[in-house]
Amino acid sequence: MSYSKELQREMEKEGIEIGDRIKVLDNGKEHTGILMPRTESDEDTLVLKLDGGYNIGLKHKNGMSFKKLEDVEVESKDLHVDVKKSGDKSVSILIAGGTIASRVDYRTGAVKPSVNEDEFVTFAPEIGGIAKIETRKILNTLSENIGPEDWKKIAEEVVEEIEKGKDGVVIAHGTDTMGYTSAALSFMLENLPIPVVLVGSQRSSDRGSSDAHQNLTCALKAATTDIAEVTVCMHGSRSDDFCYLHPGTKVRKMHTSRRDAFRTVNADPYAKIYWEDLKVERIRNDYRKKNTQRKVEAKSELEGHVEIIRIYPGMDPGIFEKKLQRSKGVVIEGTGMGHIPTDNKEIMEELKKYIEEGNIAFMASQCFNGRINMNVYETGIDLQKAGVIGNLSDMLPETAYVKLAWLLGNYDKEEAEDLMTENMRGEITERSVKSKF
Amino acid sequence: MSYSKELQREMEKEGIEIGDRIKVLDNGKEHTGILMPRTESDEDTLVLKLDGGYNIGLKHKNGMSFKKLEDVEVESKDLHVDVKKSGDKSVSILIAGGTIASRVDYRTGAVKPSVNEDEFVTFAPEIGGIAKIETRKILNTLSENIGPEDWKKIAEEVVEEIEKGKDGVVIAHGTDTMGYTSAALSFMLENLPIPVVLVGSQRSSDRGSSDAHQNLTCALKAATTDIAEVTVCMHGSRSDDFCYLHPGTKVRKMHTSRRDAFRTVNADPYAKIYWEDLKVERIRNDYRKKNTQRKVEAKSELEGHVEIIRIYPGMDPGIFEKKLQRSKGVVIEGTGMGHIPTDNKEIMEELKKYIEEGNIAFMASQCFNGRINMNVYETGIDLQKAGVIGNLSDMLPETAYVKLAWLLGNYDKEEAEDLMTENMRGEITERSVKSKF
Repeated sequence: MSYSKELQREMEKEGIEIGDRIKVLDNGKEHTGILMPRTESDEDTLVLKLDGGYNIGLKHKNGMSFKKLEDVEVESKDLHVDVKKSGDKSVSILIAGGTIASRVDYRTGAVKPSVNEDEFVTFAPEIGGIAKIETRKILNTLSENIGPEDWKKIAEEVVEEIEKGKDGVVIAHGTDTMGYTSAALSFMLENLPIPVVLVGSQRSSDRGSSDAHQNLTCALKAATTDIAEVTVCMHGSRSDDFCYLHPGTKVRKMHTSRRDAFRTVNADPYAKIYWEDLKVERIRNDYRKKNTQRKVEAKSELEGHVEIIRIYPGMDPGIFEKKLQRSKGVVIEGTGMGHIPTDNKEIMEELKKYIEEGNIAFMASQCFNGRINMNVYETGIDLQKAGVIGNLSDMLPETAYVKLAWLLGNYDKEEAEDLMTENMRGEITERSVKSKF
Repeated sequence: MSYSKELQREMEKEGIEIGDRIKVLDNGKEHTGILMPRTESDEDTLVLKLDGGYNIGLKHKNGMSFKKLEDVEVESKDLHVDVKKSGDKSVSILIAGGTIASRVDYRTGAVKPSVNEDEFVTFAPEIGGIAKIETRKILNTLSENIGPEDWKKIAEEVVEEIEKGKDGVVIAHGTDTMGYTSAALSFMLENLPIPVVLVGSQRSSDRGSSDAHQNLTCALKAATTDIAEVTVCMHGSRSDDFCYLHPGTKVRKMHTSRRDAFRTVNADPYAKIYWEDLKVERIRNDYRKKNTQRKVEAKSELEGHVEIIRIYPGMDPGIFEKKLQRSKGVVIEGTGMGHIPTDNKEIMEELKKYIEEGNIAFMASQCFNGRINMNVYETGIDLQKAGVIGNLSDMLPETAYVKLAWLLGNYDKEEAEDLMTENMRGEITERSVKSKF
């Protein structure tokens, strides 16, 4: 999308291009900021990213004047050298990619990861006031392409930062698979002494409604707290008011586009973090408290041959068989409290054979909310007789998948089987939460 | 679980067994009902199903007395012969199975489908006052075992009822795959003239907290309205106050055990139906109005070779290939707005080959809420170039799967491809709903 011909002509007169820092004089009022590409606004409304970080739309009117300002090199590194100003905490930002580190490619119109360390902190200049910040790009990947090898890399980079004596680590990551990565890091980072906060944005920072600014600011704040868990920090409502700090093993992306897409499932978030005053309102107190004496260990091995089997009526039993053949462990994403079509003899025979051959099958639910209970119906009892393990309780299927791959990578089979049904990283909630789901 | 030894001894003295109709004299108060097996209560608390349908728990005390009453044969057929009492609407109940048609098996402790036509209406005797009821058992299956062949049978049975001149049809069905069946019936029943209401229960009718009674009553009421759509009628809150009437193509079981497990996703329910006064509070008015002149058609063919591919980081690309080889069409349950790991060359090659060979691949989201949009990110654009069709908008992956199987069963490939992205049965919501998700 581009601006109207008239608006483009006026810009050309002044030698202004998208991305330039400009001054707009509008009816006596002066606005200074970066000229953004047109996104959702109408073609006569120019979008300006104000120096404070907000985007505004200015309707083009007669008498409006535009002036290109000198390029101001963003000196992001300066933002975090003033110790007095920034407090005594030091936080590392590791950039893995994703929308929060992306810009609109003006040629194709698509968003792609392209932001470097220095640009990154300019989304939220005030984070320099929260802590001493060091930013490092470790990957440049949209999260749909992040996988087990990247989880290992991220875990190892986090350990490196912890060993430098940091008070917290923020990881800028795409939202699509953020829940998988947060689960993986939860298991991999044993004895975590400090907060590790994943943050992303649903809309890139050059869009008017971007959530990058608020999310990054709140994530930085979260990284300075005593909540020494792997968490996800994202918009908590449809307004620009607060973020939720979600437990890394209980969080799921539940909306494709809304900024408050992330939900803690079967538990409560740890805290609310308000954007305006950076107040941290704790919701739970059962988190691991920060203790820099604790020695972290990156237990980052993963068994590659673990799969998820998604159950649906009319599924090809042959696929069931194929998926089992090639894996050492599976998480079945069953229906309801943990069911599959047991009337299908082909599926049941394959499943029995698979387990007899020494592989492991666990049951999770495609409902996501609620617990597995395979003692209520005939189907569940039959599946347990066949060797399917159903006491994962309220563990998310995605978390169960990551956990099983991690356990089989780091423990022998018997230990893995035992640990799978134990609560290791908050992935099982003992007492149900009464709140809405 | 069984009652305490003492309680059991007292029962034996009176020749009382579980399932008997008994009278309990407790501190001057008299309670009459069926003795239920012990479930969640403590071993000294006897559970009695009162004649009104409610279960009560009675703590065993000294001086309590028990008496076995004569077996009273439930005369369910009498409930719906009084035309004057029951109004002028006539509704058929088709029993397909599920928890709502199940009882606890006292030997194994598991719930299994076992209720016959006559017993069935005794859950909610007052439904005889809503309409003239005819009950027919067409299947006896827990819903995890219900599949495409059953969908066809149910559709044909519904058409038979419609041709008898009924005002509405209620289908008692398990909850696990109720959303799949409601989607299938939505597509199969073309030109539906009357309401078709699926109903189930999360807890069997012999449990104290069963939702069978309320759900069945509200479903009967829904079947007498002018909402000539395939709908799902289930508890709308955690209290015994109302049911929601969910659109058949937009409903998903989102909790394993809660009675209000069903949610309308990306739309609003059609109505709220209050249990106490059977008030129907319409939420939407964009439903097809009842018109018995409309001639229904059971378009019940289905293409068997359609599959769902669930995307997750670290998935075995070989499974992608295997799943594609055996299918004519797939619905990819991608991440976020519709993504898969495009960096994985093996996956991308297989996908391209599959589409070039004349098969169809559609994209849906594992977030469930929100719309697919493959124009925002590089990944989406690359997938579209490969031939993946991404304009399913906010269609649920389960509904998309059922729809694709149905389209390929009833139309040629080009028509199916076109119709897939059109809103045929409310499966796409044009304007987003602002409500909570």
